[in-house]
Amino acid sequence: MIDYQKIKQDLEGIAIEDNPALVRQKSKDFYWYSPILKKQLENVTADLVVTPKTEEEVIRTLKVAYAAGIPVTPRGAGTGNYGQAMPLSGGIVLNLAGMDKVKEIHPGRVICEPGVVIAQLDKQTKAHSGQELRFHPSTAQTATIGGFIAGGSGGVGSINWGGLRDIGNILRLRIVTMEAEPRTLDLTGWDLQKVSHAYGTNGIITEVEMPLAPAYDWVDVLVGYDDFMDGVRFSDALARSSGILVKELAPIAAPIPHSYFTRHKPYIREGQSVVVLMVAPHAMEPFVAFARAHKGEIIFRSDKIESMRGIPHAYELAWNHTTLRALKVDPNFTYLQVQYPAPDHVAKVNAMVRKFGDEVIGHLEFMRFDGQVQCSGLPLVRYTTKERLEEIIRIHEDHGCPIFNPHRYTLEEGGMKQTDRVQLAFKQETDPKGLLNPGKMIAWENPDFDFTAGKNFLFKGLTNVMEMS
Amino acid sequence: MIDYQKIKQDLEGIAIEDNPALVRQKSKDFYWYSPILKKQLENVTADLVVTPKTEEEVIRTLKVAYAAGIPVTPRGAGTGNYGQAMPLSGGIVLNLAGMDKVKEIHPGRVICEPGVVIAQLDKQTKAHSGQELRFHPSTAQTATIGGFIAGGSGGVGSINWGGLRDIGNILRLRIVTMEAEPRTLDLTGWDLQKVSHAYGTNGIITEVEMPLAPAYDWVDVLVGYDDFMDGVRFSDALARSSGILVKELAPIAAPIPHSYFTRHKPYIREGQSVVVLMVAPHAMEPFVAFARAHKGEIIFRSDKIESMRGIPHAYELAWNHTTLRALKVDPNFTYLQVQYPAPDHVAKVNAMVRKFGDEVIGHLEFMRFDGQVQCSGLPLVRYTTKERLEEIIRIHEDHGCPIFNPHRYTLEEGGMKQTDRVQLAFKQETDPKGLLNPGKMIAWENPDFDFTAGKNFLFKGLTNVMEMS
Repeated sequence: MIDYQKIKQDLEGIAIEDNPALVRQKSKDFYWYSPILKKQLENVTADLVVTPKTEEEVIRTLKVAYAAGIPVTPRGAGTGNYGQAMPLSGGIVLNLAGMDKVKEIHPGRVICEPGVVIAQLDKQTKAHSGQELRFHPSTAQTATIGGFIAGGSGGVGSINWGGLRDIGNILRLRIVTMEAEPRTLDLTGWDLQKVSHAYGTNGIITEVEMPLAPAYDWVDVLVGYDDFMDGVRFSDALARSSGILVKELAPIAAPIPHSYFTRHKPYIREGQSVVVLMVAPHAMEPFVAFARAHKGEIIFRSDKIESMRGIPHAYELAWNHTTLRALKVDPNFTYLQVQYPAPDHVAKVNAMVRKFGDEVIGHLEFMRFDGQVQCSGLPLVRYTTKERLEEIIRIHEDHGCPIFNPHRYTLEEGGMKQTDRVQLAFKQETDPKGLLNPGKMIAWENPDFDFTAGKNFLFKGLTNVMEMS
Repeated sequence: MIDYQKIKQDLEGIAIEDNPALVRQKSKDFYWYSPILKKQLENVTADLVVTPKTEEEVIRTLKVAYAAGIPVTPRGAGTGNYGQAMPLSGGIVLNLAGMDKVKEIHPGRVICEPGVVIAQLDKQTKAHSGQELRFHPSTAQTATIGGFIAGGSGGVGSINWGGLRDIGNILRLRIVTMEAEPRTLDLTGWDLQKVSHAYGTNGIITEVEMPLAPAYDWVDVLVGYDDFMDGVRFSDALARSSGILVKELAPIAAPIPHSYFTRHKPYIREGQSVVVLMVAPHAMEPFVAFARAHKGEIIFRSDKIESMRGIPHAYELAWNHTTLRALKVDPNFTYLQVQYPAPDHVAKVNAMVRKFGDEVIGHLEFMRFDGQVQCSGLPLVRYTTKERLEEIIRIHEDHGCPIFNPHRYTLEEGGMKQTDRVQLAFKQETDPKGLLNPGKMIAWENPDFDFTAGKNFLFKGLTNVMEMS
C-alpha cells in the first residue's frame, strides 16, 4: 500500500487535491461518448490530483512518484474521448492546467506552457500580432494545447495544414522523464513523433513551441443542401479551390442539423443537410459566387446576423461537437472515426451512405492528408449492440475505409493497430518502471499481443475491471 | 492615315512619348525568348506611348483613340514572354506604369492601381501589416501587378495558392471599356475570368483588389542532388508535407545550376542538380530534418551566409528567370511550358527526362493545380530548328503532357487551343471596334479559325509580317 499521507508531505508546497469526489471528477474525460468505454472505465479514479505550477514542481512530483512506484497520468482539460487522460491504475493525475503561461510570440511561432487553454492562446497571439494556431480541436474553449498534442490529431484548420502527425506542425516539445532523477529533453524534427499523440506515456510535456498562421475574423457559414451527397461534392470542389481560404469544411447529414443544432435551428429546414464552414472575410465574395455555382443555399452567415449572442461558433457544430450535440438530445447515439482515402473518397462516402441509411448518419471533415484533399468522417451511429457496432466497423474496413476506433482506450487499437516502435523505444528510455499513464500502450504491457487476432486488449491493471464478453 | 499631331493635341496634359527609339523600346517585351516570336515580332512598334497618371486620363485616351480608330495596347513593365504587350498593328501603347498608387490595405487584401511594381507593393503591405501577395512572378522586382493579372498565370507562392485562374486569387478588377463613351466596370467572382489573362483585349484595368498572405522573411535554400529525379521525388514529397511552409519549390537539372547560376556557382558542384526553395524561417528546423531524411545536401541557406550582397533572390533563379540566365550565357536555348498532370506527374517527368536527355533540360515548378500537388515545367530546349521544336512539343503531348506554347502570340495558341467564349463575348461588349490589343484573340479576328487543323494563326494586321514557312 502506498502511503499517500507521506506523499502529500513530500510534495508540500505543490497544489494537491485528495477529496474523492473532486479526484474522481479530474480522473474522467469524454470517454462516455462510447457505450463500450463507458462500461469499461466508469469506475476509474486516481488517488491524488497534483497541480504543478512550474516545471520544477513537475520534476519534484515525478521524483517522488518514481521513488514510491506511483502511476502518474498527465491531464490537460480532459476533453479527449478515449480515456486518454484517465488513470487506469489509479495513482496521481498530474493536472497541467496550472502551467498556462505564454512565454514568447514571434512571426510564425509561439512558445508556451502546456496548460494554456487553446482559445486563450489564440486570443493572446492574435492580440499580439494577428496570429493564431494553424488548427485546433472543436473543444478549443476548454482544451489545453498540451492535451491536444498528447491526445489529439487534427481539427479546425486541418483543411489547410494537415494534422499534428505532419512534420512542421509542432516545432518543439520539452519533456520531463519519469526516472529517479528526472531529466528534461527538448525534441524537434522527427523526434517529435516519439511523444506527440502518445497520451503522455513516455514523458510529461512542460513546454511547447507551435507554428502560427495568420488570424482572421473568420465568418461562420452554413450552406444547405437537400441531398447530403450534393453537400459532399460541393465541399470536395471547394477544398480543391486553392484561392478560397476556409478554415473549416464539414458536411453534416440530415437529420443532425435541424434536430441537434438547437441554436441554429431557426435557420435550418427539417430534412436539410448542411455544410459547416469558416471562411476568411476577404474570401466571402468569391465563396458566395462559388456556392451559388454549386447550387448551395447559404442559410447562415455570422457577418450578416444582428447578434451572435447565444449562438455557438461554427466549429462548435463540427468535429466531436457534432457528436456531443446529438448525444445531449439522444443518448442512444455513438460514433465512429472513419478515413475515406483519396482520390475516390467521395465515392467511398457515397457507398457507405447507401449501405447504412439512417443507422450511420454522415458527418465528414475535409482536410489535407499527405498533402491531398481528402475527408475523414465522424458519422453518428444509432447504437444497438456491441456486436452490430463491430460489424459496422468491419463493413467500413471491407470497403477500404479504415476505422480509427474511438471505442478503445489503447494507443494501438485506436490508431494504427500495430506497435509504434519509436514510441515504445522512447518509453523504455524515459519511463523504465512503466509508471506513466499505464495501460495505454499495449506494446509496453504485452509485447506479444497479436493485433491480427481480432481480440481486444484488456489491461490487467485496470481497477474494477468490468466483465468483458 | 491617322494624324498623330492632332491626337497629341487631343491628349494634351497627358504624358506622351513619340521619339521612335523610345517608342520602339516600350513596344517590346521578352518575346525574344522564343526564336520563333523573335522573327515574327521584331519589327513591331507603336506610334505613340501614352502614360496616364489617373483613371480619368485613361478614359480620355480611350475616347480619343476610339474616335480616331487607333489601336490601344496596354502595357505594365513589358516582362511578358509572348508579346502580350506588343502592339501588333501599331497605334498607342498605353503604359500603365504611371498608375502606381497603393490605395488601401486591410487584413487579407489590398486595393491598388495596376502600375505598381509587385516588389514595391509587397514592401508596402509588409511594412503596413506583415502581409504580401499570395504569389508573384520571378520578375517581381520590375513587373507590375496589372501586367501580371492581364498576362501572367502563377508563380512564386503557387505551391500554396494555385494560380490566377483559381477563383479567390483576384478579388476585384475595375476596367475601362473602349467605346465612344468609355464606361468603368467593377468585376468580382466568376466575372473576373472575363479579363484576367486576356492581355488587355477587352478592357483596361485601372484598379485591382488582391488577397494577401502573411509575409515572412523567407529563407532562400538550394538543395543539391546528383540525380535530378531524386530532387524531383524530394520536391514531390515536400510539396505533400502540409506542415512545412515553403513558398517556392523548383527542381532544376544539371548543367543549368552550375553553368548559369553565376552568383551561386561557388556553392554548386559541376553536374549537380538543385532544388530551389523559399522556406518560412519557422519551418527551417523541420525542413532540414525532412531534407536530411531525403538525402538532400543543403548547399546554400540565405540565413547562414555572411552577406546576400550581389546574390539574387532564390526566386530569381526560378520560373522564367531560369530561362533568362541560360539565355544570357547561351543564346541557342529556348524553352517550353509543360504540364505534367497529377497524380503520376513524377513518372511523366521521368519519361520525358529519359526520352530527351540533354536536348530538353529539366526545370519544374511545383504548385497546386485544382487543389492537387502537381508540377509544371519550363524545361530548357537546345534549339535547332522550328520543325524539331514542334516535334518535341508533339512528343510531350503524345505522352500526356500538354504544352502551353510560349512560341505563339495569341491567347488561344498559347493557352487552351480553343475559343474562350466568355472573353470573346466580353470583348464584343467592351471593345466593339476591336481596337484593344489587336491580333491577340483569334476568336475575334477569325471566328472560323480551325484550332484542330495544326496550322498557326497569322494575324493579317501584323505590321511587317515575316514570311512564314
